[in-house]
Amino acid sequence: MKKELILEKQQQAAQILNELDIDMWMTFVRETGNIKDPMLDMIAGTGATWHSAFIITRDGDTTAIIGSLEEPNMKMVGTFKNIISYLKSVKDDLIKTLDKYNPNKIAINFSRDSSLADGLTHGVYLELIELLKDTPYAERFVSSENIVAALRGRKSAAELSIMKEAIKETLIIFDEVTKYLQPGITEKEVAVFVHNIAEEKGFGLAWDKEYCPSVFTGPDTAGAHAGPTDRKIQKGHVINMDFGIKLNGYCSDLQRTWYVLKDGEDTPPDEVMRGFNVIKDSIQIAAKTIKPGAVAWTVDDAARSYIVENGYEEYPHGLGHQVGRAAHDGGALLGPKWERYGNLPYLTLEESQVFTIEPRLTIKDYGIATIEEEVVITKDGCEFLSPNQKEIYLIK
Amino acid sequence: MKKELILEKQQQAAQILNELDIDMWMTFVRETGNIKDPMLDMIAGTGATWHSAFIITRDGDTTAIIGSLEEPNMKMVGTFKNIISYLKSVKDDLIKTLDKYNPNKIAINFSRDSSLADGLTHGVYLELIELLKDTPYAERFVSSENIVAALRGRKSAAELSIMKEAIKETLIIFDEVTKYLQPGITEKEVAVFVHNIAEEKGFGLAWDKEYCPSVFTGPDTAGAHAGPTDRKIQKGHVINMDFGIKLNGYCSDLQRTWYVLKDGEDTPPDEVMRGFNVIKDSIQIAAKTIKPGAVAWTVDDAARSYIVENGYEEYPHGLGHQVGRAAHDGGALLGPKWERYGNLPYLTLEESQVFTIEPRLTIKDYGIATIEEEVVITKDGCEFLSPNQKEIYLIK
Repeated sequence: MKKELILEKQQQAAQILNELDIDMWMTFVRETGNIKDPMLDMIAGTGATWHSAFIITRDGDTTAIIGSLEEPNMKMVGTFKNIISYLKSVKDDLIKTLDKYNPNKIAINFSRDSSLADGLTHGVYLELIELLKDTPYAERFVSSENIVAALRGRKSAAELSIMKEAIKETLIIFDEVTKYLQPGITEKEVAVFVHNIAEEKGFGLAWDKEYCPSVFTGPDTAGAHAGPTDRKIQKGHVINMDFGIKLNGYCSDLQRTWYVLKDGEDTPPDEVMRGFNVIKDSIQIAAKTIKPGAVAWTVDDAARSYIVENGYEEYPHGLGHQVGRAAHDGGALLGPKWERYGNLPYLTLEESQVFTIEPRLTIKDYGIATIEEEVVITKDGCEFLSPNQKEIYLIK
Repeated sequence: MKKELILEKQQQAAQILNELDIDMWMTFVRETGNIKDPMLDMIAGTGATWHSAFIITRDGDTTAIIGSLEEPNMKMVGTFKNIISYLKSVKDDLIKTLDKYNPNKIAINFSRDSSLADGLTHGVYLELIELLKDTPYAERFVSSENIVAALRGRKSAAELSIMKEAIKETLIIFDEVTKYLQPGITEKEVAVFVHNIAEEKGFGLAWDKEYCPSVFTGPDTAGAHAGPTDRKIQKGHVINMDFGIKLNGYCSDLQRTWYVLKDGEDTPPDEVMRGFNVIKDSIQIAAKTIKPGAVAWTVDDAARSYIVENGYEEYPHGLGHQVGRAAHDGGALLGPKWERYGNLPYLTLEESQVFTIEPRLTIKDYGIATIEEEVVITKDGCEFLSPNQKEIYLIK
C-alpha cells in the first residue's frame, strides 16, 4: 500500500511538472535522521544519511542518487526506477544525471511561504550551489512551492479513503471522551485518557503529544496551542478539545465542544447556546464559499465577519488549513491577510484539497466554543468529510 | 528533569558564546511540526508554529519571541526567561530585541558540514534576511556550527548518566537476542523480537524503525543502512546487529557479532575467529589514539590501517560518530578524509564528547563482523561506556 501510494504521487508530480512547464524536481537532502525534508515520506518512503538527490522528471522518470551503503535499502523500498550510488562524493553522479536530462528549470525545496516546500536547509543549499558551481544548473533553480502545494493538495481516491477512516476513528475517541468527562477531572487526565485509547488502538498522534489533544475547560483557559493543565472540570464550564490521529501516514484534526450542566439545569444557559450556535452556523457559512477558484482568505472572511457581526471578538488565528500527511498541510490557507501567513491566504482553492474549518469564540464566564470539521473540495463546492457536531454535548 | 537539562545546556551555551566571542545565538524557526530544527529539543524543549526566535546571549539571558497563541505553552514549558509574543508579524519584536542587545555577531543555524547546526531552512533564511533588510543585523550572521558542536559534544554529568543507562538497557536487549537466535529465524523476525521488547519497556528507537535494528546474517548480506530481510539464519553464518534505543531523549548505538556453530563444531572456524579478533583489536588500537586535541581522522586511520594490514578490505564508512540526543550527533567525526564527510574529520576532539567506534570487515563465505562500542573522552584519553564484546557470541 505504502509503495503504491508513493508511485501514485510520483505520477501526479510528473503531471504537475508538465502543467507548470518545469522539467525536473529535485529533493536534495542529507542526514534525514536529524532533520527530514517534509516531502520525503510522500515521494520516497525512506530517508538518507549522505547527500542524496531524489529526482522526478516531467516524463515520469525517477532517479535516486544515494550513498553506496544505502543502495540495498533503496532497492528494497523500490520507489525509484533508477538508483545510482556513490562512495566518496555525490558530485560526479549528480552532474552526470543533470547533464542527461538538461532540464529547463530545476525545482528545489525552498519556500518563504510554505514550510512543506522548504525542506532544503540553508547549509545544504550552499553545498548544492558549490557542487554545481562549474555547471549551468544552479542558475536554473526555482522554488518547488507550486509543485508541493498541488501535489499535497490534490488528494487521490486512496488518500481520501485513508483520511475518512482517520476521521471516523477520531470521532469514536471523541465519543469515549464524552462518556469520561466529569466535574473534578483535570485537563491533563483527559489527555492521558485519550493517549491511552490511541496507543491501545495503535494510532499515532497528528501533532506533538504535549498538545495533542489540547483540552480547555472553563472561562480561564490557556488558549490554543497550549498543553493541558491541572485545571479541573467544573459545573458550568464550556469544555473544548482539539485532537487528531495519524493513521497509515495521514492525519485527522477535529474539535468538539461540551457543556457541564449546573445543578438544576437541563439545558445550557442562553449565552452558551448562542455562542455555540454562532460557531456552528459560521462553519456552514464558510463552507458555502468554498469551491475551486475561490481565494482562500475570502472563506476566512465569511466566518470571521459573521462572528464579529454577532458581537464576538474575532478569533486570533486562521479559519482553517489543509490536512494530509501533516496536520498543517498543503499550500493555500483559509487565513486572514496577516503578514505571518505570507502569501498563503492569497492562493486559490483547487478540487480534491482537504481543509479544516475551525472558528472559535469566547463565551464570557463559561469558556471557549470551538468546532473543527474537515471538508474536501468538489468540482463546484465542498463536502464535509466529518459528520458535523450539531448540538453542544452535555455533561450531567 | 527535562527542564533542568535544558537550563543546564543554555548555561553551557552562554559559556561557549564567551569562548567564541559571539554575543548572540538565535534559533529561528516556523512550523516545527513539519520540519524541526535539531537544536530545539536541547535548548527550548518545545516547538513553534509561527516564525519564532529562541535567543541565548553570552551573558546567559534567554528570550523567546513567539506567536501569541503559543505564549501559554511557552510559559508552561518555562525554559525561557523573557517571553515576547506577537499577533501579526514577528518583525517589530525581533528588531526591538536585536536593538536591545546590539550583538557583535549573531550565530544562526546553518552549516555545510553539520546537519545538527543546519536547522534553518533556506526559505526561512530568505525570510529572515527580508525581515532585517533595513537593519545592520543580517550582515552580522555567522554559522552556529562551532557552538552546536561544542554544546552537543560536551556532555554534562546528567547527560552521561542517562547515556550510560541507555547503553546498559540496550545490552540487556542484546542478551535477549542471543537467547533468541536460532537457525531458521529470519532477519525480520529478529527485528520484530527487538521491537517488541523495546515497546514493552517503553524505550524509543535511536533511529528509523525500518533499520533499527539492522540485522545481517550470512555471507550474502545487504550491507549497512539496510533494513532486515527474509533471509534466514543458517548454521555457519556470522550474524551482526546494529541497534540503539532512545531513553529520556538520549540515544545508544551498539553492534555485536554472533556465529552459528555447524554440526560438530565447538568453536568457530579459524577464519571467523581471525576476522572477529581483528575487529576487536582494531577498536582498542583506535581507542588508544583518542584524547582531547587529537584530530578526528587520525583515529579512523589507526583502525582502518590495522584492518587493511591484516589483509581485509577497508570498511566503506567512517569509524565512528558522536552520540547524544541524536544517534549521529555533534561535530567532529571519526571518519576518513572523504569529500562526503566535509570538514568533520578535520576537527579536533574535546573532553566529554561521546563517540562510537564501529569498524567492520567481511569474513568471506561467513558474513560480516562488526563490533560497536561507545567511549567518552576524558582529560587525557578515553573510557569505554559500554562493557566490550570480548568473545564472539556462539549460537548452538
